[in-house]
Amino acid sequence: MHILITGAAGMIGRKLTGRLAKDGELHGRQIDKLTLLDVVPPTPASNFAGRTAMIAADLATPGEAARAVEGRPDIIFHLAGVVSGEAELDFDKGYRVNLDGTRALLEAIRATRDGYRPRLVYTSSIAVFGAPFPDTIPDDFHLTPLTSYGAQKAIGETLLADYTRRGFCDGVGIRLPSIVVRPGKPNKAASGFFSGIIREPLAGLEAALPVPETVVHTHASPRAAIGFLMHAAGLARDALGARINLSMPGVCCTVAEQIAALQRIAGKRVVARIRRQHDPLVARIVDGWPQRIEARRARELGFKAESSFDEIVRIHIDEDRGGTFVD
Amino acid sequence: MHILITGAAGMIGRKLTGRLAKDGELHGRQIDKLTLLDVVPPTPASNFAGRTAMIAADLATPGEAARAVEGRPDIIFHLAGVVSGEAELDFDKGYRVNLDGTRALLEAIRATRDGYRPRLVYTSSIAVFGAPFPDTIPDDFHLTPLTSYGAQKAIGETLLADYTRRGFCDGVGIRLPSIVVRPGKPNKAASGFFSGIIREPLAGLEAALPVPETVVHTHASPRAAIGFLMHAAGLARDALGARINLSMPGVCCTVAEQIAALQRIAGKRVVARIRRQHDPLVARIVDGWPQRIEARRARELGFKAESSFDEIVRIHIDEDRGGTFVD
Repeated sequence: MHILITGAAGMIGRKLTGRLAKDGELHGRQIDKLTLLDVVPPTPASNFAGRTAMIAADLATPGEAARAVEGRPDIIFHLAGVVSGEAELDFDKGYRVNLDGTRALLEAIRATRDGYRPRLVYTSSIAVFGAPFPDTIPDDFHLTPLTSYGAQKAIGETLLADYTRRGFCDGVGIRLPSIVVRPGKPNKAASGFFSGIIREPLAGLEAALPVPETVVHTHASPRAAIGFLMHAAGLARDALGARINLSMPGVCCTVAEQIAALQRIAGKRVVARIRRQHDPLVARIVDGWPQRIEARRARELGFKAESSFDEIVRIHIDEDRGGTFVD
Repeated sequence: MHILITGAAGMIGRKLTGRLAKDGELHGRQIDKLTLLDVVPPTPASNFAGRTAMIAADLATPGEAARAVEGRPDIIFHLAGVVSGEAELDFDKGYRVNLDGTRALLEAIRATRDGYRPRLVYTSSIAVFGAPFPDTIPDDFHLTPLTSYGAQKAIGETLLADYTRRGFCDGVGIRLPSIVVRPGKPNKAASGFFSGIIREPLAGLEAALPVPETVVHTHASPRAAIGFLMHAAGLARDALGARINLSMPGVCCTVAEQIAALQRIAGKRVVARIRRQHDPLVARIVDGWPQRIEARRARELGFKAESSFDEIVRIHIDEDRGGTFVD
């Protein structure tokens, strides 16, 4: 089996590459080849027995998408994209990468016209939803994004569903909740504090909490996200039906519950490194975000998230901190 | 005031042009200029006191959209598009006209960068919805189109909302129900019979009914559609909020109720010209269509449809048949 990962140099892309390389198989089929694509050259998987091809390319550049599917990958994980903050700051870049890049990939697949019909797993986001929301967002809630990123993801979902309905590809769209705890340095994303208030205190550093502890949000670990992607790759077409874009499950909790989980696992000294520092701008942005995602269909289809925020904290300590933290 | 109508040569375009020309004003402002754009040269309005400009152009062709907004129309009615059947048969043409054409128009407006921010009234369709449905489709129901036309309209709505949110234009999207009675010859649209079973009998001709009389559907007259467009042009931005795409109201009724209305107005001899001729293909297609549209927000915002199918029949006799029919 040949697998293509676009956006392979990103956080999820790197973790997915590592996992597939280690497993050497997916849903019982041996992985012979991994093609890793990104605008920056991706890191090859160190422990992979099969062949690896690297492509440094922007899918929106004419000809690049055709090159990406030249080897007819059986499964494509389409993770490439400009993130929320950047898509809002640079309107043209967001539409070029997130919309034109996705459309170019779909068109390149359609252009093969040789019966090629890969499973295409598309990473969408709960940013396709926009406030006001009901208490819990059901699977049939309308998409009224309040960011250009969310709009581009919603359009990508619609294209994916139409290309799939027409038989040009075999798509599954998965709407990821906030992925927490993101390893690495703090970034400027408005959602950054959801990871920061866990990651920084565990590293012995202070972290600012810019919103009230009553804020509710839905989270999943990077490990759960990789699990969603791999599970989507193996879903039977007839189990999916026509509605191929699915809200993923996650742990719905308040910031206070996040902090309580951290204290249970790492103690009071760690939790004391969280500084309450209200930021009205961040608080306003977060106010427009989805809170509780129902994800009934995804759960019924076997997608699994963590069952508590404690688990999410433990996964971070285990995967990204070698099992330890700064007490 | 300067008004641009794209798709001005179509059925709705012609009726809207005629109405605006006759009124000579819209929401209390005098119409100085009408620009009529279509791929085929549109017919000028005969009784218009202001200036009329004609543009024969395809908005998806580079440079044409810029030419269309060169005169900075205050209001744009964007009706241009490939219809449902054609978009399904010719995938490339549907995406080029319905998606690329709409995006080109939005980009041309954004490219002016001189503070130009026209009211853009976009005609969407209830084809953005796809079965299965609840009994009544609420305003917050998700968009899962089951045709390429519906997908293209859903994408157009998303683009319109994002360009509006970013301040590049001032958009309102209106999802039209089935427009009945369409004047003229029968066409091959699967929905054609909804008009045909009224129009043909009134003209002394037989009409085939391919579906059971229990089929429920939502209808509005061409006159109501023109009313929706004109009302949308005058809606206050703050009354609309962020959710600018609205399902329009209509008359929800069964085919049996349509026929009963025809009989009340035109008598038994006219109704006897309807032949029951089951067509499993048409019946299956119609089965996937929205039935009852709630349109609560649109009604609250003052959009008005007919209150009975009788009215729809009378409007057809009045507008398209000079007040008479073949008994």
